[in-house]
Amino acid sequence: MWMQKQLHLSAKPRGFHLITDEILQQLPDLNKFRLGLAHIFLQHTSASLSINENADVRRDLESYFSRAVPENQTYFRHILEGADDMPAHIKSVLLGCSLTIPICDGKLALGIWQGIYLCEHRNQAGMRSILITINGD
Amino acid sequence: MWMQKQLHLSAKPRGFHLITDEILQQLPDLNKFRLGLAHIFLQHTSASLSINENADVRRDLESYFSRAVPENQTYFRHILEGADDMPAHIKSVLLGCSLTIPICDGKLALGIWQGIYLCEHRNQAGMRSILITINGD
Amino acid sequence: MWMQKQLHLSAKPRGFHLITDEILQQLPDLNKFRLGLAHIFLQHTSASLSINENADVRRDLESYFSRAVPENQTYFRHILEGADDMPAHIKSVLLGCSLTIPICDGKLALGIWQGIYLCEHRNQAGMRSILITINGD
Repeated sequence: MWMQKQLHLSAKPRGFHLITDEILQQLPDLNKFRLGLAHIFLQHTSASLSINENADVRRDLESYFSRAVPENQTYFRHILEGADDMPAHIKSVLLGCSLTIPICDGKLALGIWQGIYLCEHRNQAGMRSILITINGD
Repeated sequence: MWMQKQLHLSAKPRGFHLITDEILQQLPDLNKFRLGLAHIFLQHTSASLSINENADVRRDLESYFSRAVPENQTYFRHILEGADDMPAHIKSVLLGCSLTIPICDGKLALGIWQGIYLCEHRNQAGMRSILITINGD
Repeated sequence: MWMQKQLHLSAKPRGFHLITDEILQQLPDLNKFRLGLAHIFLQHTSASLSINENADVRRDLESYFSRAVPENQTYFRHILEGADDMPAHIKSVLLGCSLTIPICDGKLALGIWQGIYLCEHRNQAGMRSILITINGD
């Protein structure tokens, strides 16, 4: 059994945002799958999807990645779209734009501490499009 | 045809560990799949799964990532669980917690030099839970 | 419906290369899938697959990653295969060797700006093998 659904996430400020609930609210039919896989695909190149602690590490993640991928490097050539743009593409390559999560008994089989992040790397981003594809029994 | 199985990996010291054999030993039914995909999902936020050289690069990987994500940064706020904790979450976001590997003729179709790693980022970790989901013909 | 196909990508110089067209040319049957998932797996440990801007950020990506993972670190032990070898393995772990991309109406459902990259981390690499596995309706 296959299901595919396009979602639009509301615009978010730069940083790491928990979106587990925002995604689950738009997947009411998830409970029809006894087991399977949910694929979540972000159709952008300056934001990322990730899984991590659903508690208080999000500010430190933003602090770390903003230092690890600093703005205004003299060797950057792609600079016309703002100081945050090229670092946003680099972070997107580092963290990735898709997740695959197992489904067990009609639910995403995340670990106790795991949540789904939208990592917004632009200072002034708009809505973000996500395509979810589910396959299972 | 679907198969889903929960595994528990024995506790391991901090570092990069080859677990290809430990996983295959617990998948005796893999040979029933002519082709398909195996999804391996680590249900934790302070360790990672990765694929790389099944030979002698593992110590250098640990050396690199411990330098690239140093402990005791003054800007870290999430520090109550030890100096290795916040870097462990960052490394988990960088490397990821899931792998999808093709199956061909009843075997994981890894390249000659590829092996599956558990990347343990905590100094004193316990067992780690993995959920494997296989779909194929 | 399942489909699996082995591809061989021509040898490429070190850097980030758009291979979307090179892959699509070898998947003429993609249009038989109304919806599904395409899994692209690179069977190597010193190159990566990634998705990002299909325009002009590729040189900056190479510049960034060559600085973030510098050659000739005194703590490297795996040095016999050349100064670019251990950094290549690290970059492969950072960026990953597989992609899963949704299929919608017989096409890869990439965002407007998204393209598929082969990230070649070796100075003198040969052909690279990719195994593509497609499942869908």
